[in-house]
Amino acid sequence: MNIQQIIKENHLEQWFFQGTFGIEKEGHRIDAHGNIMTSPHPHIFGNRSYHPYIQTDFAESQLELITPTAKSIQECLRWLGTIHEVVWRSLPENEYITPLSMPTDLSNLESIKVAQFDDPKDVAYRDYLVNVYGKAKQMVSGIHYNFQIDPFVTEQIFQKQEKYSHYLDFNNAFYLKIAKNFFRYQWVLVYLLSASPTVDPAYFSSFNKAPAIPFVRSLRSSQYGYVNHPDIQVSFNSIEDYVRTLEEHVQAGRLIAEKEFYSNVRFRGGSQARELLSRGIQYLEFRLFDLNPFAPYGITQADAQFIHAFILLMAWMDETADNEGVKKGQDYLNQVALENPFEPTVHQDEGIQLIKQMMAMLQTLHADPSYLDIAQQKLDLFHHPEQTLSAQLVTAIKSTGSAKQLASEIAIKNKAQALETPYCLSAFQHMELSTQALIFDAIQKGIATEILDEQDQFLCLKHRSHIEYVKNGNMTSRDQYIAPLIMENKVVTKKVLEKAGFRVPKSTQYLTLEQAIADFALYEHKAIVIKPKSTNFGLGITIFRQGPQNFEDFVQAVKIAFKEDKEIMIEAFIPGTEYRFFVLGNETLAILLRVPAHVIGDGEHTVSELIDEKNRHPLRGDGSRTPLKKIQKGDIEILQLKEQGLTLDSIPKKGEHVLLRANSNISTGGDSIDMTDQMDESYKKLAVGITQAMGAAVCGVDMMITDYTQPASENNWGVIETNFNPMMMMHIFPYQGKSRRISLNVLQMLFPELKII
Amino acid sequence: MNIQQIIKENHLEQWFFQGTFGIEKEGHRIDAHGNIMTSPHPHIFGNRSYHPYIQTDFAESQLELITPTAKSIQECLRWLGTIHEVVWRSLPENEYITPLSMPTDLSNLESIKVAQFDDPKDVAYRDYLVNVYGKAKQMVSGIHYNFQIDPFVTEQIFQKQEKYSHYLDFNNAFYLKIAKNFFRYQWVLVYLLSASPTVDPAYFSSFNKAPAIPFVRSLRSSQYGYVNHPDIQVSFNSIEDYVRTLEEHVQAGRLIAEKEFYSNVRFRGGSQARELLSRGIQYLEFRLFDLNPFAPYGITQADAQFIHAFILLMAWMDETADNEGVKKGQDYLNQVALENPFEPTVHQDEGIQLIKQMMAMLQTLHADPSYLDIAQQKLDLFHHPEQTLSAQLVTAIKSTGSAKQLASEIAIKNKAQALETPYCLSAFQHMELSTQALIFDAIQKGIATEILDEQDQFLCLKHRSHIEYVKNGNMTSRDQYIAPLIMENKVVTKKVLEKAGFRVPKSTQYLTLEQAIADFALYEHKAIVIKPKSTNFGLGITIFRQGPQNFEDFVQAVKIAFKEDKEIMIEAFIPGTEYRFFVLGNETLAILLRVPAHVIGDGEHTVSELIDEKNRHPLRGDGSRTPLKKIQKGDIEILQLKEQGLTLDSIPKKGEHVLLRANSNISTGGDSIDMTDQMDESYKKLAVGITQAMGAAVCGVDMMITDYTQPASENNWGVIETNFNPMMMMHIFPYQGKSRRISLNVLQMLFPELKII
Repeated sequence: MNIQQIIKENHLEQWFFQGTFGIEKEGHRIDAHGNIMTSPHPHIFGNRSYHPYIQTDFAESQLELITPTAKSIQECLRWLGTIHEVVWRSLPENEYITPLSMPTDLSNLESIKVAQFDDPKDVAYRDYLVNVYGKAKQMVSGIHYNFQIDPFVTEQIFQKQEKYSHYLDFNNAFYLKIAKNFFRYQWVLVYLLSASPTVDPAYFSSFNKAPAIPFVRSLRSSQYGYVNHPDIQVSFNSIEDYVRTLEEHVQAGRLIAEKEFYSNVRFRGGSQARELLSRGIQYLEFRLFDLNPFAPYGITQADAQFIHAFILLMAWMDETADNEGVKKGQDYLNQVALENPFEPTVHQDEGIQLIKQMMAMLQTLHADPSYLDIAQQKLDLFHHPEQTLSAQLVTAIKSTGSAKQLASEIAIKNKAQALETPYCLSAFQHMELSTQALIFDAIQKGIATEILDEQDQFLCLKHRSHIEYVKNGNMTSRDQYIAPLIMENKVVTKKVLEKAGFRVPKSTQYLTLEQAIADFALYEHKAIVIKPKSTNFGLGITIFRQGPQNFEDFVQAVKIAFKEDKEIMIEAFIPGTEYRFFVLGNETLAILLRVPAHVIGDGEHTVSELIDEKNRHPLRGDGSRTPLKKIQKGDIEILQLKEQGLTLDSIPKKGEHVLLRANSNISTGGDSIDMTDQMDESYKKLAVGITQAMGAAVCGVDMMITDYTQPASENNWGVIETNFNPMMMMHIFPYQGKSRRISLNVLQMLFPELKII
Repeated sequence: MNIQQIIKENHLEQWFFQGTFGIEKEGHRIDAHGNIMTSPHPHIFGNRSYHPYIQTDFAESQLELITPTAKSIQECLRWLGTIHEVVWRSLPENEYITPLSMPTDLSNLESIKVAQFDDPKDVAYRDYLVNVYGKAKQMVSGIHYNFQIDPFVTEQIFQKQEKYSHYLDFNNAFYLKIAKNFFRYQWVLVYLLSASPTVDPAYFSSFNKAPAIPFVRSLRSSQYGYVNHPDIQVSFNSIEDYVRTLEEHVQAGRLIAEKEFYSNVRFRGGSQARELLSRGIQYLEFRLFDLNPFAPYGITQADAQFIHAFILLMAWMDETADNEGVKKGQDYLNQVALENPFEPTVHQDEGIQLIKQMMAMLQTLHADPSYLDIAQQKLDLFHHPEQTLSAQLVTAIKSTGSAKQLASEIAIKNKAQALETPYCLSAFQHMELSTQALIFDAIQKGIATEILDEQDQFLCLKHRSHIEYVKNGNMTSRDQYIAPLIMENKVVTKKVLEKAGFRVPKSTQYLTLEQAIADFALYEHKAIVIKPKSTNFGLGITIFRQGPQNFEDFVQAVKIAFKEDKEIMIEAFIPGTEYRFFVLGNETLAILLRVPAHVIGDGEHTVSELIDEKNRHPLRGDGSRTPLKKIQKGDIEILQLKEQGLTLDSIPKKGEHVLLRANSNISTGGDSIDMTDQMDESYKKLAVGITQAMGAAVCGVDMMITDYTQPASENNWGVIETNFNPMMMMHIFPYQGKSRRISLNVLQMLFPELKII
């Protein structure tokens, strides 16, 4: 079969780049000095028996971070970065993740435990490996790269070729070709990407002596790495031979299980190799990549693209490596891995030739220009060995003083960067903060998360076979559809709450100015609020605390309200302070007081300077993606100052409260103050009752309360609004008071079978 | 206490008109000849043990229609009319409702059963009444008018008066005053509103001889009406006396129960009179009104307003009738009731005086002008006795030939009118048709219905303590909130359906022209649809059944789609015909084929004439409130004709199918054809599965199907859209095929404890 010809003739060039990608990345937890942690795997990451993202590999300290299957490299890297951010922010204060593949200090090797899984078989397997390979070797970390080409491509090529009459055979031959060619040329990847030049000398032993030179290209990919005994030879002639020879090793007891076969390419498609015969190879796992210490997540997007192009090239090239070729490739690999990283490789010519072949392929395929740029950069490295990763790492180790020191410095820097904006996930920063919080929590607790629609904040969460969909952070299957429809309509909300016996300001709707004015007599002696039917920014609202004093005032207020909406409401005024209750199920989880934008004078600085100072708070930002907003110095703020006889240049007295906004919205610079613990219990119960009357699972209840320290009675409170899809971020990151991570409660509500809180 | 003064000084004029109103209206079911039906109460009206609207009074044939408590007279009359429409449209073809209070033919009296309630006690009570009063008297029908003044008014007046120190005492005195003054002046209402001048002579007997003249004002309000034995005297001196004397009659066995006391004013506020002492009088029931035979619902809005003003006058006037006055009023009543309707009443002067007093009150209160107009009209009647209702009725009977004939003619006309637009409720015609259907069904089946927000189509349905809220006909508590959110988003919908294993056209979203064009190669050889992300009218859609033939065509189609939305989708094309499946729970209830607007030629008429003919269909209308829409003759239709080489003036051949629209929307004149019974079962099951995958209780599933007679297989169908809040009216009133009253299924879903279907 001539794949190149088939692809060109059938315009499959773009399709050839389609595929699915997945990355697994190992790395030990270390302390600030670079020592491997002996503490247990953090409890905060939920249960390893099902966690799809955060696992432990060999050792209890060895985090294994696993991306979900992604439709593109970019998507795959987004997840890898996000999982890293979650881990960094969740780790105890003194814990970090080493950026190096090889251990830098094995002095506490005895106290390092194998991973403590729930299942004793998992632990026993690790104990066996310690016996066979030694504990030190088990401490090596790296990256596994999983790739499946879009099945549409293999189907299309299958239909056009003539050699195979069954698709399964064709598919297996296709992936076998990639594997064999990969074995033939993998040394090129080691030359370009490897980064394990050195290790703690304790790693070596009398029967496994250190290499002759102090720094090599890749200890991990060399004979010193995690490799099987030379006796373990598995055939890649055909999928049948592969399965047969692998099973023979296991049956003979030379391998404890199939997974003990450490090939740089693994065929995936079932829990046992035999399944490949009936199901075919589903995807390939490439295992030879060292951690890139300079990439926060262990691999860069460019290198991930380069590996992709490399794999495609293995399929694209006309020939398929035979057993000889595979053997030759293995020899080259061993040789290159132990070369001096600062010197050119002896196989330079073959390497250059291969990259040029890759570039020709990319051009024929009209690949995205970034692929060609990356290939060109890699090509240049054959003339500049000192710029290879391994050489750069050696340079850095030398300039820092030690690998251990370098590892700890990079680890600390990486974690610090992740902590800079704790409220947002870099890769999902264009999504709503509350959805980001939920993604964060789901990843942390091991609930499989899929973004169904990024613009629309739509998530699919999954634990085993239990699927839940979530929109905007807390719109879920747990709410009845009618609940938000009720809350959306203020008139209906009031009627429903009234029926249920809650204190709601009585109100009447009006569609015309005339109707409203005709009813003046009904309101002349009552404390009322006149407002547009739908407004959320305080526009068009007039409050008559003593009732309208005369007809003219009343008419004026009605007109103001009608400017904002085609329907207005006149309702009884309930005095007090407004609090937001966040209710989930039968519990009030958080209570917030929102205070209008303001500064407090210190007798020294101007209002303008005080605003600047307040705006430096790390939670305040300009856009929509911070928990708090900067106070503006616009017309409204200046007018507000004017009413207090001030300007931006005034210097308020020490302790003087300077108001900058009349409304208390967080979005206009207001402060959020957590009051959950201070509020009298009676109001929390009322909020729960109100939520239940709405038929809601999640509800933001706005109540007017005269004195939050006094229990609710006949006339010291009232409910003024109920909100579906209530904001969560202001409770999670309040300006003052305790943070309430209510997104975790949302997860717990959705997955009661898990112990999340 | 001087009520007038207090109202004026405290600006309570408008409040004085506020109150709650309720009407109960009796009337026998009759056949087309005016004979009282002997058939059982129609099963379609559900169960009388709880029905709030449609009951039987004394006889099995005697419908008692009861409005809910309403905040205005207009509202009360809306309900009365609506309940009537429901009853008329639900009655068997040969059944009607008599418009007359008095029976016109008692010849089949023996075969008329008392109402057959489930509870034997209810039946036994009626049998007792037959023994005491005779069966004939039990056949009399009338209207009961319930009224409560807004408690805010009585509270305000109580606070300003000095006579009573307890509110309860004041409240009871207030209503007692109304009652006593009502007894004093009720004859005026009889003069003005009564309409029972005659009855089948069999009604009288030897010991209850017919009056001296053939026609009187009101048999029903006279001694011939449904009155207690003269021994039964109950004191209205005080509420305590009232309760005591009433209880004495029951204890002495003179009344079998308190409800056997037939006063023209009843105090309401508990199931037993004694409760009035602790709870106070809640409202008054006025029982002396004859059916107005010329008002389809037995009473006009004007008369309901007049009665309201009359009751207010009873409270407004300074004096309160003493026992003498009450006695005098009773005498006047008996006298006036038996007067010749064509002659002035002997108490003309007092009547004129009273109406003038009413008009003065209305002026002082700044009443709505309609009240004054109505009072003026009634005033005129004192000079024109021949225009009183009773006189008009006599005139009509004479001109028709007999009361029985008149009754049947009016009854037939009333029912015919109600059947003219069976899809809409006159009083709620501005609401959505599907909400009207649900209101209709709820009233029919006896589920208490409240309109929470008319503009917003928001209903509250209640059976006993079980409350359900419904918006837009089928948005309920039964759907999960997330379900409509999923359906609202086409991308998410597809992903969810794909996960669940349904055949969904694969699709990709694009945000820019460049992105879409770059992917040309992915689509070059595939049958695809290019369309804007959100459109419902077929705008911007291009279908490439053979795949785009060249790059230019593809680019053109992408541009067209981007004209309609900022995001487009390219998706695999599924061939076939589109059907709408209406699924509720685990059942496909209805399937509809929508056919684009068209006419079929007859070889004689022009296209324009054929359109006119088709548009005469009773279900077709212009506005949004008919199940089908008229076909327009606009630019789009003319263009469509042009493509077929036709104009509006062409005469198509017999049987020629002339297309007038490319899209199949009902809203642009399309036909709806029920296919529920014809469709292969496999698709119905698929639609149910799709609905369940959405987590929806109610769903409109749009499927493409190659051949509806063949079972679903690998590639002969696909789901293209799921709709929350699917339209119901097109299934209830299809253009062709069987009607599917799915609104009943919605009710059954909400109230599983009832047997609705």
